[in-house]
Amino acid sequence: MKLTRTSIRLADGRELIYFDEREGADRQVPDTRDLGVASTSSQIRCDPLREEWVVVASHRQGRTHLPPADQCPLCPSREGRATEIPAADYDVVVFENRFPSLAPDPGEVADGGPFHRGPGVGRCEVVCFTADHGGALARLPVGRIRTVVEVWAERTLELGALEGVEQVFPFENRGEEIGVTLHHPHGQIYAYPFVAPRTERQLDVARAHREATGECRSCSIVAAEADGERVVATAPGWVAFVPFAARWPFEVHCFPTRHLPDLPALDDGERDGLAALLKDVLGRFDALFDQPLPYMLTCHQAPVRRDRDLAHAHLEAFSIRRTATKLKYLASSESGAGVFINDIAPEQAAELLRAAARKSS
Amino acid sequence: MKLTRTSIRLADGRELIYFDEREGADRQVPDTRDLGVASTSSQIRCDPLREEWVVVASHRQGRTHLPPADQCPLCPSREGRATEIPAADYDVVVFENRFPSLAPDPGEVADGGPFHRGPGVGRCEVVCFTADHGGALARLPVGRIRTVVEVWAERTLELGALEGVEQVFPFENRGEEIGVTLHHPHGQIYAYPFVAPRTERQLDVARAHREATGECRSCSIVAAEADGERVVATAPGWVAFVPFAARWPFEVHCFPTRHLPDLPALDDGERDGLAALLKDVLGRFDALFDQPLPYMLTCHQAPVRRDRDLAHAHLEAFSIRRTATKLKYLASSESGAGVFINDIAPEQAAELLRAAARKSS
Repeated sequence: MKLTRTSIRLADGRELIYFDEREGADRQVPDTRDLGVASTSSQIRCDPLREEWVVVASHRQGRTHLPPADQCPLCPSREGRATEIPAADYDVVVFENRFPSLAPDPGEVADGGPFHRGPGVGRCEVVCFTADHGGALARLPVGRIRTVVEVWAERTLELGALEGVEQVFPFENRGEEIGVTLHHPHGQIYAYPFVAPRTERQLDVARAHREATGECRSCSIVAAEADGERVVATAPGWVAFVPFAARWPFEVHCFPTRHLPDLPALDDGERDGLAALLKDVLGRFDALFDQPLPYMLTCHQAPVRRDRDLAHAHLEAFSIRRTATKLKYLASSESGAGVFINDIAPEQAAELLRAAARKSS
Repeated sequence: MKLTRTSIRLADGRELIYFDEREGADRQVPDTRDLGVASTSSQIRCDPLREEWVVVASHRQGRTHLPPADQCPLCPSREGRATEIPAADYDVVVFENRFPSLAPDPGEVADGGPFHRGPGVGRCEVVCFTADHGGALARLPVGRIRTVVEVWAERTLELGALEGVEQVFPFENRGEEIGVTLHHPHGQIYAYPFVAPRTERQLDVARAHREATGECRSCSIVAAEADGERVVATAPGWVAFVPFAARWPFEVHCFPTRHLPDLPALDDGERDGLAALLKDVLGRFDALFDQPLPYMLTCHQAPVRRDRDLAHAHLEAFSIRRTATKLKYLASSESGAGVFINDIAPEQAAELLRAAARKSS
């Protein structure tokens, strides 16, 4: 798949990249806004009690919150209204977040005290999936989702090459119920200056398993789940299942059946497969309750600079909705103790998701 | 402190215990309801990817959800309306949850597959702090909070002695914003059949620190924070501070300055101190935005059967509210990667909490 890539600078210096499925679009339209440079001053701090990194980004309190549709900053610009995207139309576009949690130059931070901290180095990008404000990732043509997969892979390589970046994490937050402030279909990519705590944990488990058995823990999970009662969907090179110990009422893990570290390692057929699988799984999500399901879609990749062979890439999609009218809240057991209470058996969730497909097709 | 303790059985066989500050109350009023025995069938499952325990409790979907105040099941019973508490009044009362995530006899679970699971053995209790439906833990007289502390300690000992219980976790969820389904002031206690993931993580860090330095990590944190810029309040034997790497907009950790494993190990003076400290800290929470703050209050104690000397007890109180009108949502970075983004610097949160005290007093 060959995309046409055009990088420009927005009025405040942030980078914006058009990824076009066809050549010839006018990508030299300038950003005409009078934008001040937003200052970022984020820090990373290591929790001394549990040694997990936290990002302190106190400059973000004033960020854009649920603007009306006619003021959406992710729609293309039109006569009289300039948005984040200067062009009049686009396929997929990526740009640096105006209110980033992490930035290439967040300033100096003294690491003098008894606890460890550092500057919040990294990069936060917004990925617009379509120019259509009312669309949704699951309702895009599979070819467009394929473009999104290609963009995730491209950004993983480019962000992973930035100084100080240790892990690249593409994701989509969808739904006001999980605090999404912009309805236009979009995802984000965080380039973290550390290996994320849940990734670190997964690597520790994988390392111990490999030392004990010589095998990849994820490969053994895929082998055990394939063709089993928790499978929701498959696509060439991929299997999607509700995990054995799901934390969320509806949770689906998408694993490549081949051992590989990240999205850039996928071959063309596997990228096609992932696009088809995401359309299938996210379509089932929306069919579950005949309403757009609030969900998180997260892409778990190998760290950039270590454990490249140990890690096995996968995606996790999960929802906080547990019935048509009720949400799962994270309360003290989950947020305090880390113990998730799941009200739906994973096998039942898988059955409901398989049935949702029949209903929606 | 001497409480009068009376244990009775509710109509469906669940235990209820009155803890009275004075002798002489009539505690033999029977439960007159016609209650069927609620069946529980929870399982614990170990996530093979990250080796953390999850509770699957699929019998709980139909539990009570925000009843009107005149149908509150936690108010005392009165003529014509029987609640969970048969008596006409009470001080503090504890009873087994009718919709428990964990139960003493959740049935058999075969552990035959490639992944580990077991029965959801344990116990879930409700702790009513006051008979006053419109009250709040922070607004109770300090003597009543002292009673709650005493009850937590008593329950920790008794639940910890149950077969299969590995950790006792008292907590309070407060506010509809975090999914609380009953407004009557109450907390809960979970007796887990495993050491909770976040406790396990803390113990791993403490173990490595002790091996490297000979010291307790928590003691070193307390020493570093005492009298520092993040301190919010103190009480005899206790210090409360916003942690260096706070995950939540408003988060306060309450540590005993003496190294001890759990609430039962507190002496009388330290129990008095904890009661005073909780009233102070939670009062500041409500003063922050001049409205009841949604919060979680969690009690982190040593496992029941191991690492008794390694662990250092503490409490964590934290809120998802970040401004008077905005909440902190856990989205993909937090829920997927485990990376918390905090919009308020801990030092600023501490300053706001200190100021809130001056405002409310």
